[in-house]
Formats: sequence, C-alpha cells, structure tokens
Amino acid sequence: MNRIKEDLIEAGKFGREQQRRVESYAELDPEKGVSRPEGTPANRQIRNFAVQRMKAAGLSLKIDKFGNIFGRMPGMQADSGSVMCGSHLESVLNGGQFDGALGVFAAIEAVRRMQADGFQNERAVEVVAFTGEEGSAFGQGLLGSSALCGKLGQSEALSVTNTENKSLAEVLKQSGYNGDFERELDNDDTFVEMHIEQGPVLDNAQIPLGIVENITGVAWITATIKGMENHAGTTPMDMRRDALVAAAEAVSFVRRRANAIAAHYGSPTVGTVGRLEVFPNGINIIPGEVRIGIDIRDVRKETMQHLMDDTNAMLKGLESTHGVTVQIQTPPVHDPVLLSPEVVQTIEAAAQKTGIRYMKMNSGAGHDAQIMAGRVKAGMIFVPSRNGISHSPLEWTDWEDIERGVCVLTQTLKDLSV
Amino acid sequence: MNRIKEDLIEAGKFGREQQRRVESYAELDPEKGVSRPEGTPANRQIRNFAVQRMKAAGLSLKIDKFGNIFGRMPGMQADSGSVMCGSHLESVLNGGQFDGALGVFAAIEAVRRMQADGFQNERAVEVVAFTGEEGSAFGQGLLGSSALCGKLGQSEALSVTNTENKSLAEVLKQSGYNGDFERELDNDDTFVEMHIEQGPVLDNAQIPLGIVENITGVAWITATIKGMENHAGTTPMDMRRDALVAAAEAVSFVRRRANAIAAHYGSPTVGTVGRLEVFPNGINIIPGEVRIGIDIRDVRKETMQHLMDDTNAMLKGLESTHGVTVQIQTPPVHDPVLLSPEVVQTIEAAAQKTGIRYMKMNSGAGHDAQIMAGRVKAGMIFVPSRNGISHSPLEWTDWEDIERGVCVLTQTLKDLSV
Repeated sequence: MNRIKEDLIEAGKFGREQQRRVESYAELDPEKGVSRPEGTPANRQIRNFAVQRMKAAGLSLKIDKFGNIFGRMPGMQADSGSVMCGSHLESVLNGGQFDGALGVFAAIEAVRRMQADGFQNERAVEVVAFTGEEGSAFGQGLLGSSALCGKLGQSEALSVTNTENKSLAEVLKQSGYNGDFERELDNDDTFVEMHIEQGPVLDNAQIPLGIVENITGVAWITATIKGMENHAGTTPMDMRRDALVAAAEAVSFVRRRANAIAAHYGSPTVGTVGRLEVFPNGINIIPGEVRIGIDIRDVRKETMQHLMDDTNAMLKGLESTHGVTVQIQTPPVHDPVLLSPEVVQTIEAAAQKTGIRYMKMNSGAGHDAQIMAGRVKAGMIFVPSRNGISHSPLEWTDWEDIERGVCVLTQTLKDLSV
Repeated sequence: MNRIKEDLIEAGKFGREQQRRVESYAELDPEKGVSRPEGTPANRQIRNFAVQRMKAAGLSLKIDKFGNIFGRMPGMQADSGSVMCGSHLESVLNGGQFDGALGVFAAIEAVRRMQADGFQNERAVEVVAFTGEEGSAFGQGLLGSSALCGKLGQSEALSVTNTENKSLAEVLKQSGYNGDFERELDNDDTFVEMHIEQGPVLDNAQIPLGIVENITGVAWITATIKGMENHAGTTPMDMRRDALVAAAEAVSFVRRRANAIAAHYGSPTVGTVGRLEVFPNGINIIPGEVRIGIDIRDVRKETMQHLMDDTNAMLKGLESTHGVTVQIQTPPVHDPVLLSPEVVQTIEAAAQKTGIRYMKMNSGAGHDAQIMAGRVKAGMIFVPSRNGISHSPLEWTDWEDIERGVCVLTQTLKDLSV
C-alpha cells in the first residue's frame, strides 16, 4: 500500500465511530461518516497526526494565532515568496474522509516525492492546514484562511464562538494549537489546493482531474412569507391567503429562472430553495407563514446578480398576486473569484507532462483558495467525487484518481518552486 | 348580564391562564387561549360546571361509559324519542371559549327558556355534552358521539390512549366521569347542535345565523417525495432530482385544481397542503426528501373523489417529470354527510318565526352532528366566527349573535319536542 493511501486511511479513522479505518468504497457505512469539527477531540487527533507526518517528512512546523499549521521545506532562495499548498482538516458532522484532509496529506506526499526525486526547489514549499473551513463548529466558514489573509481581524476571528459558546481562542488553547507564528503573506507567494470536487461533473464525464478557473459566488436570500392562518375545511378557496401556495411559486420560479439564465447566457448559474419551513404545519390548517432559504451561485457576477434581482422581484410580486407580505433578507454576498490564470496554466502544463486527462472547470463550493486568491496567486486541482456526493458518509474518491491528482500536484509544485 | 352570557364567560375561564374571565373581544390575549383537552384538570372543571348548571336547571343527570353527559328534562309522552341538543366541552390547545362549549350552554339556556315560558314539551329534551370531540388529547376526534352511535366499539373507544399513554377508560375514571348509563338511541330521537361556524362565510355576508345542510367529507392524503440530496453549489441544474421542486408543483396543483373543480361544478370543494417538511432542510443542500399532507373536503362525494383522483394522479406523475419517487398514503376517507332535511326545515321555520336572518350553508369542519346523523335525524345551527378564525385564542362570536342563535335554538327545540 502506498504512503498517501495509508496516510488518508489512517486520517480517516479520526472522528469515525470506534476510529474505524475505511479502505474502500464498499466499507462505507451510510449512517456513520467522520465528524471532526474544530474543538472536538477528533479534530485534535487529526491535527496531531498531520503534524507528525509533516515532521516525519522533515518539515519545520509553525502554528499561527488562528491554529493554522505551516510545515515548511526551505528552498535554495531564502528571499523569494514560497509555494503554499494545502487545505483543511476539519470535517462537517457525519461527512467523508477526503473533504479537506486530502489536500493536506496530498501536499505532504508531494513534498516527500520532491525530496525522493532529489528535486532542488528554489522557493520554499509550505504545507498548510487551515483552521475552521467548514464552519461546522463556529457557524462561519473559511476562518483560518480569512484571518491569515486579513479578511477577518485578529480579535474578530479569535472571538468567534462555537455551538458551546466557546471562543476560537479558548478552543485553540485547549487543544494546544494556539501558536504565535505571524505569517505575513508576500506578493510573490503562491497557493495551490487539491480538493475533492464535491459535485458530479468529473465523475459524469469520466475525467480524473479538474483544473479550477473560477470559484462560484454565493448569495443567500432568506424570506418570510406571511399569509393568513385559517381552517382548511371552513375557508373557501377564494378567501384564502395561503403562505405555502405563495412559497411554492417561489420554489418553482427559482428553478425555472436559474435554468433559463444558465441556458441563455451559457453560465453555470444555479438556484436552490434548500430550506422551507411551514407554520403552523398542520394538515388541516392553511399555512399562515413560510420561511424559505434560497442559495444562488454563479462564477459570473452579472448573471448571478441577474438571478438575485429576478428572485427578489418575484418575492415582492407575491404580495400582490397572493395577498401575502414578504420580508426579504440578503446577508453579505460572496462575489465569484477568478483564480490565477498563471497557476491554472502551470497546472495544465503539469497535467500534460504527466499524461493525465483533465478538464478546466468551476468550483460550485467555497474553498480556502478563494480567500487566498485575494492576496496571492492561487489555483485548485479537483479530483472526482463518486456520484457527486459530499458532506455525506457516502463521499468517496477512488485511489487511482487520488494518485493521478498527487502526480499533477507534485509536478505543479516543482514547476512553481523551481 | 343575561344568564347564557354569564355561563359562557364563566365556562371560558377554565383552561385559561389564571382562570381569567374574558367578557369581550378586546380582552382576548392573542397568545393565551383556552386549553382543556380531555383528561386535563381544566376539562374536569368545565364538566363539573356544566353538570352544576344542568342540575340547577332541574335536569336529571346521567353519565355513560364514554363520559358523555346527558341532562334530561322529561316530556309528557314517556314512550317517544327525545330531542337531544348539545355539543362538546373539550377544547384544542390554545383555542377559544365558544368552540363546543357554546352548544352545551346554549342547550341548557334553551331548556331554561322553555321552562320559563311554561312550555309543555311532549317529548323529553336532553342536553348532551360529548366526550373528546377535538381529538386534542387522544389523536382521534368525535370519540364520544362515535361510541354512543356504535361507530366505535365500546372496548375500542375505551382503550384509545392519549399523549401520556393513558387510556380513555383511565382518564374517565380519574375524573369521575366513568358512568354506567347505557343510552340506546331510538329511531324517533332527534339531535340539534349549535356551534360557531369556524369559517368566514357568515361574518363576510353579515348574516347572523347559518342552517347547516351538509357536513363536508374529509380525505387526508400524505405523500413522501424522494429525490436526491446534493450540494446546491456543485450540482448543475440539469443533474438534479430536487424533491422540493416536485413538492412545490404539488402545492400549486392542489390549489389550482380545487379552484377549477369548485368553479366548474359549483361545489364548495377545498384542497389544502397544510403540512410540508423538507429534509435535510439546509439552505445549501438540494432537498432529498419532502413529506406533504393534503386536506381535501367537499360536501359532494363525486367532486371530492374527482379532486382526490386528480391529486393522486398528479403525485404519481411527479415521478416521471421530476425523477423522484412518490409514496402515497390515504387513510380512511370520511364521506360527506347530509343532515336531516326535516330538521333543517324546522330550524328554518324557527328562524322565520323569531325574525332572524339566516342562510343555508355547509359545514367545512367535522362535528358530533355528523356522527349522530348516522343514527337519528340531526341538524345544526351556526353562529358567526369573527374573521372566520377558530382553534385560536382570537376565536370570537359576538354576544348579540349568540343571543340570536339561542332564540332560534329554543324555538327549534319547542317545535321538535311539541
């Protein structure tokens, strides 16, 4: 069994019931995935394991104030920016073993292969494991990378509290991952993240590698639709103000409109009503209130704005067509992020050199790379997710695809650090 | 203050916080209604109060095995069927003070007026308070009347359990309302129930009295729609099987089709999706499963069946149009009930004699009268519900309308018992 496979199987037991090792898709238990949100013992265990593997690879370890872990292999040139490579160790509740962890252990493996090949890197190569990417414990995701990049102030980041009302500072102190390293980013730094796709595109196309050009923007629109609660038997159809009938129109609209915009503009626009709650939710009561949560994403800002505008207008329009009132909330919108064309080109060349089939694509999920892209040249490598499933115990990526990804990643780090 | 008003205000304090008396609409607290499901201390209190008022009116009290209370004023003719009149004392959680109780205390008041008028009734008049009409405690409604009419076997009725897993037999024993009276119904008996409309028809039309001709049939269809749970960001629109998009179509269909059937056949058909639950219900997750509950009602069996058939066909059709699977459950359907045209005619004549404006109408809610109609000639009198609201702390009926209802009820009992 090769090293990267053994590392990932070993890492995959942390946060899984009875620290069970899962070596193949057939061994997945659809009820029992891995759970290692920041602050849990399982999270500390996988951090300790990653640190141990980095040290074994001869990397010099540093931890910053936000719990981000840096394992550095120096380069010949001391004064140039370094090539950073990694992802996150945190998992969602009941998720899979590759989401995040793959990017950290693949980076360690790439460094080991560079060493084994006797590769002389000019620039330093730095393995990074970011804190709190998922937001499973702290509600807010991308914590470590945002703090590193200064998108989140130091005290703001450290005072974010988790579901047990403990601050990030407390949680890090408890696990011993409250370092004092002050990593200043340099314009000359680069960052590469390898990650599972978490979507069905590669698996469907039977292509083993994706080179990410854009990371989708995300807007969450939540709306409260108020109608009039009433008896389902005694209220004639023409005297109703049914909040669910109005909400159903919103659900259909978002689907139809996202389809239409995607088709018309050739954009990967998606719109989803993922959350819908009915009050009082009794079979014989006309719904008086419905709350819905709408997720809108696109890699093109204009088409994303288009779907947001149309959705908002539709929601307000329900007031006159259905006699309801609609309150709309739109928290801060995350704009789409363009990754570095230079890094994309380098990854593409690496795939060609190693003879691995690839496609350029977009990421529909958020990643630390989108935060890093605000400060340094950043790129991403995707490997396929079987059936497009992630954030689920059934998340899986085949070992052959992981091996192909590591080959391209190793070549990419060589080409960036040369 | 007249007697019926005082009785209802006094009865309205049982099950209300701090036994508060509510004398006017302005005193209603929208958060705090009355709660007196069977088996609660409040339910025993209102039973005791009703018994006390019946005894004070000179009625001879009997309690049957199911906790139904009978207060009898004998007639001159010992061997004829009696005129039964009443409703229920149970309330839903957080409901209003008139739902049910009005019918019991109006019956007592009508008897008192007959006595005061020196009216010589040939037939006995019997005030009845039925057990467990709402199903608030025991899940299943119309318990007392169903047991009395033999629609529910004796042991079946007594072994029904409430939310605390106590049987009806235990609950009745505890409150002392486990009687041994065996009321055998006679073909010659009649039954009249006065009740709040629980709908907006009378209030909207500004008509103080409704004479019920039909009680609606009810069918509840529940369906589980299974699609494929997936990431809302990474799953392209054309690769989705979104259970909520399918469910939204069902919600819109039920509304549209009920409207169309009602318009085409001139029937009071109603269709409502009152319950809808989304799984896993995360804003950024494509819904993998939705469960819906549909309430279909009509006073005409054919049009009700028509809407049921169309709804079932639509639900199955979602499988091919949305790539989902749909499991449908339809518990026993309650057919519409035609009340006695003879009793309707008697009530109509009574309204004309007393000079009170009325309209003939249907009941969209279920009532003990629909069970009684299976065994005896039964009729119902409705009084307006302000804004059509019931099963809510804001349920209200104006005192003038109650007075008009009692006048018509008294005249009706006279005409039926003469």
